[in-house]
Amino acid sequence: MSEAQALKYQRVAALIERQIASGVLPTGSRAPSVRTLARNAGVSVATVNQAYDLLERRGLVEARPRSGYFVAGAARRALALPESARPRARRPRGVAAEAVDAMRASLRQPEVLSLGSAVTSFSSRLDARLNRLTRQVLRESPGLPNELSVPPGDEALRRAVARRLGMLGMPVDPEQVVITAGAMDAIVLTLGVLCRPGDTVLVESPTYFGILQAVEHLRLKVVEVANQPGVGIDVDGAARLLEQGGIAAALLMPNFNNPTGALTADGGKRRLLELLGRAGVPVIEDDIYGDLHFGAERPRPLGAFVAAGDPGPPVVTCGSVSKTIALGYRIGWAVSPEYATDLARAKFCTAVACPGLQQRVLARYFEEGGYDRYLRQLRQALTVDRDRYRDAIARWFPPGTRVSDPDGGVVLWVQLPDGADGDALFRRALDQGIGIAPGLIFSAKAGFRQFVRLSLGAGWTPAVEEGLRRLGALAHDS
Amino acid sequence: MSEAQALKYQRVAALIERQIASGVLPTGSRAPSVRTLARNAGVSVATVNQAYDLLERRGLVEARPRSGYFVAGAARRALALPESARPRARRPRGVAAEAVDAMRASLRQPEVLSLGSAVTSFSSRLDARLNRLTRQVLRESPGLPNELSVPPGDEALRRAVARRLGMLGMPVDPEQVVITAGAMDAIVLTLGVLCRPGDTVLVESPTYFGILQAVEHLRLKVVEVANQPGVGIDVDGAARLLEQGGIAAALLMPNFNNPTGALTADGGKRRLLELLGRAGVPVIEDDIYGDLHFGAERPRPLGAFVAAGDPGPPVVTCGSVSKTIALGYRIGWAVSPEYATDLARAKFCTAVACPGLQQRVLARYFEEGGYDRYLRQLRQALTVDRDRYRDAIARWFPPGTRVSDPDGGVVLWVQLPDGADGDALFRRALDQGIGIAPGLIFSAKAGFRQFVRLSLGAGWTPAVEEGLRRLGALAHDS
Repeated sequence: MSEAQALKYQRVAALIERQIASGVLPTGSRAPSVRTLARNAGVSVATVNQAYDLLERRGLVEARPRSGYFVAGAARRALALPESARPRARRPRGVAAEAVDAMRASLRQPEVLSLGSAVTSFSSRLDARLNRLTRQVLRESPGLPNELSVPPGDEALRRAVARRLGMLGMPVDPEQVVITAGAMDAIVLTLGVLCRPGDTVLVESPTYFGILQAVEHLRLKVVEVANQPGVGIDVDGAARLLEQGGIAAALLMPNFNNPTGALTADGGKRRLLELLGRAGVPVIEDDIYGDLHFGAERPRPLGAFVAAGDPGPPVVTCGSVSKTIALGYRIGWAVSPEYATDLARAKFCTAVACPGLQQRVLARYFEEGGYDRYLRQLRQALTVDRDRYRDAIARWFPPGTRVSDPDGGVVLWVQLPDGADGDALFRRALDQGIGIAPGLIFSAKAGFRQFVRLSLGAGWTPAVEEGLRRLGALAHDS
Repeated sequence: MSEAQALKYQRVAALIERQIASGVLPTGSRAPSVRTLARNAGVSVATVNQAYDLLERRGLVEARPRSGYFVAGAARRALALPESARPRARRPRGVAAEAVDAMRASLRQPEVLSLGSAVTSFSSRLDARLNRLTRQVLRESPGLPNELSVPPGDEALRRAVARRLGMLGMPVDPEQVVITAGAMDAIVLTLGVLCRPGDTVLVESPTYFGILQAVEHLRLKVVEVANQPGVGIDVDGAARLLEQGGIAAALLMPNFNNPTGALTADGGKRRLLELLGRAGVPVIEDDIYGDLHFGAERPRPLGAFVAAGDPGPPVVTCGSVSKTIALGYRIGWAVSPEYATDLARAKFCTAVACPGLQQRVLARYFEEGGYDRYLRQLRQALTVDRDRYRDAIARWFPPGTRVSDPDGGVVLWVQLPDGADGDALFRRALDQGIGIAPGLIFSAKAGFRQFVRLSLGAGWTPAVEEGLRRLGALAHDS
């Protein structure tokens, strides 16, 4: 099946799904016939059949012989979106560090099936092209790999980054772009510039565990604002926390939170920026997943709103090629009209510089063109796999399992049924050679023990299908 | 002149220099005749002539027609070793950051003659070989550049590092080696593991400005112990500071302090370790210049003493290929029996990983062999250039200038005559397209304003010679 076809049947399925969700098609009612739907949606009968197939596998409809499709009831709840965490207690210290160590160790074992790491193997199809560009740079500039690429870094790459942000409505001077060793390096450098030890940082809950570990490494404290699947950042909650004061910086992922995959809508972004601006709290924006939108439009970074004149605080926009082009290159950026000099200084006095070779190769890659075409393919593959993984979870995980329906990114956020323990599932899966991420590492609070994060990054292979089946079986006893 | 020859005449010159320094040959006395010295030292007459030539250019001896060489008096003082700084006041805040910014900016301007950066262009002769290894890795493992090299990093490289340390009498398990983005990254990660904000770190005075900036970035405080050219770390001074207590970690460069170039002798190292061990203060050892010894033996890292059973605290030995093989690769290591897991965790939560390509290429480089032969050539070149640069300073800088006679490394530490301002010289040289490092950035105190650091790294070219001449002329008015 071509990826264009795949998208078409998904669009049709989404149409029906929305009607079910909104109650237009209540439980037990008859869904539109295949022929009617094909005519109305302007697609082939085959496409509609694929769509119903998908809806049936997800448990949203059931086929009755010679009568067509009917809206299912109970099965729908099996794929409800996960809830926010409720408990407010602190997570026991050390628990998360130990779990992350186990995860990190598993990444070093090639025999472990990786269903937990928020990266995609899709970019391996760029290997040949990137290696060709590498050989080209070596030929043209044999001395470059061994020269110091003094911060802010390779000028051609900074221009390319500035150009792409410009296309998103965020006009940027290349001098405002500081090249870093990926988005986490950008975030850590910015935290060092903006915060003093003991300061409090506003983060989302759940949020990427690496952020929580980095904040702890820097001896900073966190307060957490909920990010809910299908909703995004709880802006009202943020307003309450900001009112209490004492927050030195906000570290947010409005474009596809990791792990919830939620997009915070433009209205929410505007209100957040206004609140943060009024409170005088600068924002570090983790835009690493921004290019991996499943919807039609690339959501704008917060920096674009402020650049366009919306009221708001200083925003440092952090990005990377790690989730799209080249995980292993360790190249990202921090973009800031206000702090670029401080960030370049921080880079210079911590790791001195990033390798010049990878920077130049990426600059060439952007200059050659084709990134947008590649991104479309990557997004389509992720969208198809999102549905396949969700189907597999609906089929094999215990009833009562909830799973995110992400707006972008590469992960699914899975809430196990009440009483189940995501950490126990993580351990037992690892024993059986399957790597996932336990939910408890995504918050400094104790709220996500019932959760696990699954990655779509391994693609859809027989090994992945079998892994999800075995994981589901394990989840029945967790 | 071959490099082997160069070393021979230097050895002979050093012989005479030591006799002058120790008073065996007092001012005005007759130095051994050329023939006598040739016979006693077992070298050719030509070599002795070269040695006396060098001593004469340095102002240590003067030739009297038909009478031979006589020990000079006043001129000797022109190349005396620099003093320790005496002032104890804090340096005004921001001054150093601004100067370092200016230095960093100058590194981005290819038209500036770099006489200030503590790196060597010698390694460019490895470009072809490293690029060949890069192409080989791309051919054999086309997916490797884009795979995540999960901390602690590439196993082959960690084995190679462990093997080299083992040869220095420091047996190390590869699991104790954590690959980092150079030695500064290793130091910064270790400071993050060992210290809490507000903690005090014992550093040398002077010390590498990047260390002071990193410590400030991490919101740590410093106390400074003197490191004197020709002497090394002031162990008695360290003892006094340790007695006062309140020190969380020591960050030391016993093997060729940057900028003094001094080696702290084995006895001093042992006493230091004992004092630190008794005070319970762990040591971060910056061994980045250890392979660049001008003496016959590679000095042992502090970690080797503790590994051999000497009493001492936990030692984290930090190293890098930046000063020897590949500045642009940004690859170094932190080695620790105690903290390897914490360091790998810190790496993973800050910049996630280092690029796998450079790690594998370096592992191959070490496996192929020839590093020791290359190092010998590099050290000989640096030794010859050290003398050439010192000669040039003796000839062109104002009387009263003092300069270090480093035991290793790639820099000279120059004390301008009383009343001269190293920062003014730095500014005026930069205006004329010559980059040097002002002394004031090498301490948090105000003691080194009269100093500048020069690098031997640019080698000896007509442009360098002319640059040193112009620098000397500027120094006359600074």
